[in-house]
Amino acid sequence: MALKHTVQAADPLSKARACRIELERGVIETPVFMPVGTFATVKTLSSIDVDNLGAQIMLGNTYHLMMRPGPEVFKRVGGIHNFMNWKKPVLTDSGGFQIFCLPNSRKITEQGAIFRSYTDGKLILLSPESSIEMQQAINSDIMMVLDECVPSTSPLEELKRAMELTHRWALRSLAAHKHQHQSLFAIVQGGTDLKLRQTSAQFLTQHPFDGFAIGGLAVGETKQEREDMTEVATELLPKDKPRYLMGVGTPVDLLEAIRRGVDMFDCIIPTKHAQQGVAFTSNGKVNLVRSVYKYREDKLDSACDCHTCENFSLAYLHHLVKCKESLGWRLLSIHNTRYYIQLMKETRASILEGRFMDFYNQKIAAISVTDTELEGTSGILLPPALFQSKSRYGALTSSEGFEAASVSAVVESSESSLV
Amino acid sequence: MALKHTVQAADPLSKARACRIELERGVIETPVFMPVGTFATVKTLSSIDVDNLGAQIMLGNTYHLMMRPGPEVFKRVGGIHNFMNWKKPVLTDSGGFQIFCLPNSRKITEQGAIFRSYTDGKLILLSPESSIEMQQAINSDIMMVLDECVPSTSPLEELKRAMELTHRWALRSLAAHKHQHQSLFAIVQGGTDLKLRQTSAQFLTQHPFDGFAIGGLAVGETKQEREDMTEVATELLPKDKPRYLMGVGTPVDLLEAIRRGVDMFDCIIPTKHAQQGVAFTSNGKVNLVRSVYKYREDKLDSACDCHTCENFSLAYLHHLVKCKESLGWRLLSIHNTRYYIQLMKETRASILEGRFMDFYNQKIAAISVTDTELEGTSGILLPPALFQSKSRYGALTSSEGFEAASVSAVVESSESSLV
Repeated sequence: MALKHTVQAADPLSKARACRIELERGVIETPVFMPVGTFATVKTLSSIDVDNLGAQIMLGNTYHLMMRPGPEVFKRVGGIHNFMNWKKPVLTDSGGFQIFCLPNSRKITEQGAIFRSYTDGKLILLSPESSIEMQQAINSDIMMVLDECVPSTSPLEELKRAMELTHRWALRSLAAHKHQHQSLFAIVQGGTDLKLRQTSAQFLTQHPFDGFAIGGLAVGETKQEREDMTEVATELLPKDKPRYLMGVGTPVDLLEAIRRGVDMFDCIIPTKHAQQGVAFTSNGKVNLVRSVYKYREDKLDSACDCHTCENFSLAYLHHLVKCKESLGWRLLSIHNTRYYIQLMKETRASILEGRFMDFYNQKIAAISVTDTELEGTSGILLPPALFQSKSRYGALTSSEGFEAASVSAVVESSESSLV
Repeated sequence: MALKHTVQAADPLSKARACRIELERGVIETPVFMPVGTFATVKTLSSIDVDNLGAQIMLGNTYHLMMRPGPEVFKRVGGIHNFMNWKKPVLTDSGGFQIFCLPNSRKITEQGAIFRSYTDGKLILLSPESSIEMQQAINSDIMMVLDECVPSTSPLEELKRAMELTHRWALRSLAAHKHQHQSLFAIVQGGTDLKLRQTSAQFLTQHPFDGFAIGGLAVGETKQEREDMTEVATELLPKDKPRYLMGVGTPVDLLEAIRRGVDMFDCIIPTKHAQQGVAFTSNGKVNLVRSVYKYREDKLDSACDCHTCENFSLAYLHHLVKCKESLGWRLLSIHNTRYYIQLMKETRASILEGRFMDFYNQKIAAISVTDTELEGTSGILLPPALFQSKSRYGALTSSEGFEAASVSAVVESSESSLV
């Protein structure tokens, strides 16, 4: 079965809502935060850890999983759930966002995106069909259509071209989607143009997708523009289907989007900030690199019930961060991920009890003291420069791009030979 | 109280023995492996993890802990146990071995070793007295005397000079040792010279140390030389005190030393090999980088009860190692550390049941197929080259060395100011 969606409560003073999404592998209660398991692991955490943190669903990145371990492994072991020992639902993105992060080493054609594998340098065509094929191999519970993601502040013509291509690709994805136990979400594009966003939402909602995402945000626009686009998109999305704001964001970003009617989120911020020694707490953001924490025997967040806060002091966390010990990254990843999950749980309770706006006002006041510093960093899975540095191979030449586009749309496995 | 030591069983066919060491913070049953918590964390693991793995005692490195977090933190928070939330015993080394790893940026005088802090470039004098002072601040349960560790294959004159200095430093350490709840171990030196080893053991055992370590091995000699020196040292060490072989080694090395009468071990091999994707199993060493594991749905070691083996497949571990995910390092650290602890537990049972040599023969046959490749890497905490690359500061000039030696023997805190 595809997912079953129920709205359980709608806030009277905003568009916030609490929903229930039933999937074969479990029920998701929204608003929900999905930890990002890029390579079938949320950085520093195992599936057991993520389960212990109370996550209801995890995200996997199709682009990265296509490179490693590759589709063949998923086919042989029976999908990502067996592979990583995670029994709850998984949502996979389409790979579109990661392709967007490769501006100098990919080529977009009508057929799809051609890029070089960073594991072996082979050319790969990521098309709507091959993305669905890969997501079927991964056997995720919710799949995303391949979209073309351009900078949200691109010229109108460019935004329109990318949106229209995204629409054609969405219909091809729908046609390629064969496994009825998997759900498929479409992605509303249109950059920061209100009319394009409306057009995109109106077009996509005429087709039988199981849910809708808002894509192409957190990639260059202001916080206000992001919130306006979110508002306009949710206005046109059907009430009876899940709404997912991709790649966003800080705790404040999530509250702003929930207020505007969004149900689902994913972001690498909790683990990325953890790597940099930054924690989210009920009193705002804490930078553990600072020596003011050197002798602090109290815990990171007195309101938190996570493993880190229950067992370790600020002084110890500061020390681990200073020593660049991977345990520091892990303990802060545990805390930050729990913080996001707990924030969603509290938000949901406030919606169910009809007091969301009070909760929202109180939370925003409590946590945005330091949180504003994070603006502009939300949602970027990997900064383009960092991302490209992972490839040992050069940019595509135009002839290479066209050659690959004209051959068959097969996803090449990166490491098919045994050594 | 200092430690209380009881021999519970002695193997009839070898010098292997099972002992019980009582300390204020817990009982240690030997043979025992002590995971190395360099910076107050066993790499990738928290104190809770190490406890769950069944460790009875953890090792801390005085040299590193002196740099970070520094003595002041330990004084303020009440020692390493509170700092890292570890309730069981801790053994601290003296810093001597790490100083040995800095051949171009330290100077040894009668007073002690002078070196530059790698955190702020300040000159630090590590003397027998300042090492004990630091270990008292750390508040470890077992302290080690400062020794001069030279390459085990140095010329006889050099080995003799270093041994005699080590003896004078041992007596100064004993004099500086004030806290009766802490125990103090001396270190037998003498390189690969049988007579010097005997002289060293005879000298040190005349003084009221609580236990004796065999130092200066696993630093250049052959496996046979190491085993001969171990044999000669244990021959002369008192039966009623613990014997500790510092920095050794592979699983086979441990069995060889136990056969020769050693009770206690520490080594970074379990976590260091984990970082490189190498695991120890009941069938020998496994290199998870190899693509032969790509599709293997079975577990790493069917005889292992660790969290990793109970939850994850070879295919998943191979994938994490290939992706250089820190979770791979962690899951293999969990497995390898558990492997060492379980090996010591099984070895102890065989001694208590009078069947050690059968156990030894069976184990050596089962695990040394691949294990021999590890020879020569055991015991080096940090390779000197790697170690030195951590310092932003140059080598000592001779005048700097003498200046520092002539000033007071105070351990400088590396980060005393708050920012």
